[in-house]
Amino acid sequence: MSIALNPFIAGIPANPLRALFPFAARPGMLNLASGHPSRDAYDHAGLAEALPKAGADFPAWTYGPSAGDPLLLEALQEHLAEVPAGHRLLVTSGAQQGIDLAIRTLAPPGAAVLVPEPVYPAVLSACAAVGVRTVGYRTDAADTAMAGLAAALAATPDVRALYALPTFGNPTGETLTRTQRLAMLALCAQRGIPVIEDDPYRALWFRVPPPPSLLALAPKVPGVAVIHLGSLSKIISPGLRLGWAVAPDAVAGPMQEARQASDLQPNSLAQRVALHYLRLGRLDAHVARVRGLYAARYDALAGRLAAAGFLMPPVDGGMFVFARMPEGTVRDGLFDRAVARGVMYAPGAAFALQPGDAGFADRMRLCFVGLADADVPVAADRLVAAARG
Amino acid sequence: MSIALNPFIAGIPANPLRALFPFAARPGMLNLASGHPSRDAYDHAGLAEALPKAGADFPAWTYGPSAGDPLLLEALQEHLAEVPAGHRLLVTSGAQQGIDLAIRTLAPPGAAVLVPEPVYPAVLSACAAVGVRTVGYRTDAADTAMAGLAAALAATPDVRALYALPTFGNPTGETLTRTQRLAMLALCAQRGIPVIEDDPYRALWFRVPPPPSLLALAPKVPGVAVIHLGSLSKIISPGLRLGWAVAPDAVAGPMQEARQASDLQPNSLAQRVALHYLRLGRLDAHVARVRGLYAARYDALAGRLAAAGFLMPPVDGGMFVFARMPEGTVRDGLFDRAVARGVMYAPGAAFALQPGDAGFADRMRLCFVGLADADVPVAADRLVAAARG
Repeated sequence: MSIALNPFIAGIPANPLRALFPFAARPGMLNLASGHPSRDAYDHAGLAEALPKAGADFPAWTYGPSAGDPLLLEALQEHLAEVPAGHRLLVTSGAQQGIDLAIRTLAPPGAAVLVPEPVYPAVLSACAAVGVRTVGYRTDAADTAMAGLAAALAATPDVRALYALPTFGNPTGETLTRTQRLAMLALCAQRGIPVIEDDPYRALWFRVPPPPSLLALAPKVPGVAVIHLGSLSKIISPGLRLGWAVAPDAVAGPMQEARQASDLQPNSLAQRVALHYLRLGRLDAHVARVRGLYAARYDALAGRLAAAGFLMPPVDGGMFVFARMPEGTVRDGLFDRAVARGVMYAPGAAFALQPGDAGFADRMRLCFVGLADADVPVAADRLVAAARG
Repeated sequence: MSIALNPFIAGIPANPLRALFPFAARPGMLNLASGHPSRDAYDHAGLAEALPKAGADFPAWTYGPSAGDPLLLEALQEHLAEVPAGHRLLVTSGAQQGIDLAIRTLAPPGAAVLVPEPVYPAVLSACAAVGVRTVGYRTDAADTAMAGLAAALAATPDVRALYALPTFGNPTGETLTRTQRLAMLALCAQRGIPVIEDDPYRALWFRVPPPPSLLALAPKVPGVAVIHLGSLSKIISPGLRLGWAVAPDAVAGPMQEARQASDLQPNSLAQRVALHYLRLGRLDAHVARVRGLYAARYDALAGRLAAAGFLMPPVDGGMFVFARMPEGTVRDGLFDRAVARGVMYAPGAAFALQPGDAGFADRMRLCFVGLADADVPVAADRLVAAARG
């Protein structure tokens, strides 16, 4: 029998990053493609201490509230999440569920969400799954007034939300300045559009902390609403699949209902592990160590590639750099040549709004955090060799 | 600012069962309302053995495939999930995510899904969240040809799926016979409609195993498609939030894409705990023990309530009975009187398709598994006293 499908779901574009998984499993592969913390960027001792404490709590094994374990909500507020008056905190299954819930709560099928271009492709999947249109906006360090965003807003009817990743962007690694953030908020306030601020990398700054979040700046821009999404994936463990959302009450309530309809509640066991990990008081020292690791790896990778003619945009934190290949790189077959030499990158085209858009064909997203220190120069050399043909 | 919301999400009906949570926390409350396994129905020793094994596996802490941990998929097939040729197995975050993904994959906004009446209300939430209409069908032990279902199918345009909970139903506790199952499959085959079989209670039979699942019977009915949903919540732990879906390839692929768009992948840590628990080889003995506990509790509760004039439909397994109050029960204020006496039940009206529909006003869903043995007669006596006014 042929089975009729919801065309929205049948039309979800394949996630080009998840399609790279099989290559990553090849022996000896140095993976600059995937945004995965390296094994030495986990606090293994702390997790080993938290795990049995979690297991000894009966609430780890049974049902709990849809908004999250009340003790974890408290611990998140103490350590990580800022919850302004009139806002509520929800635990999510990673920031991805926060993106999905925020988009679904704000935008009905057929409406539009503005997204940065280039974009993290899972945002496109979340929109496509519910029939929401995505329209790109461009940012540029020189565009302090966010004219690119203003133009996209003006040109797009029925916009229900702006999606932004303003701090150590994925794939770009770029960070909007405080001035740009205020301009973004003002444009959204003017148009009456809430902002979904995806902020999973904030803690991973190299030398100085990033500008305040859009959520923190929102009180300076009357009438703007921000839904802020955080994640434990990049600072504690992606396998816990835990993030959080801070949203105005009027949005948080429906987001929680949507969450309950999707999968009832966050994972009870993972929440207790996170709770006991946070209670150990090791997070700050752990994240400081990870910052040092990542900064050194970025410097090592960027230095080597820049010397070989790659254009490496400056990056102040996070996990990614959106490198431009040297002039004259033979792009045809480059990914295959790189794989053959034992190095992987995420092709720039993976971050285009339209699959097949060649706009970023000379770019590659390089995740500089996932390799052991000693492998970083090796990976860079392999990439340089592959680019040379 | 007033924020525009997706009317589908804003219109999700409040889940009347989750609204009972606060009462359950009152000291001394005997909770017959919630479908939660009792604390003595967990294999605490087995979980304590599995947990450190899980923690020692690095894949517990990092990203994994959207379809599920390959080792868990293998273990589920060995112990629990039957995967016919042409079908694929996916790990889900509880059966609720399976329901959500199956409905979203099959039914676009505006289309209809048939659901049994009375119904588990979270199914209505999942449909409402994506603008899918729900239309009820009635079943009855005397209706061996499923004429009620045939009538509902005939009367409803644009049906995209049938949702069924044919084994130890929630709230009814009823089980469709093999004849009824074949009739259901034949009706769906005729109409070209896939069946979503929600099957979380199958292992909890009292004296004899239930009839084969719809999935197992499907080969006898050419042209029918079944998406089968299982759960570890009722046999290992609800806090792990793990279930599984078996679906025809043509449905499983899009379900997996929808899952990835929602929250990327199942919880890595919980999957490893389940894997190591299954590998211990303790599941069968554990479930056999739980079956004994639950059967004894049902007998104790049903005996005591029947003696006091309650009509207790026969139940052969699972967790629920849909009791009918004695003639002459003063229904006004009954829930409050029960709570005042220290006992809770789920009001029948909570399972109506339309909130406010009085169709099940003389019913109460009683979950007989959540209390300690000694508390069962006490809860029954409190309920009888409350019913008497």
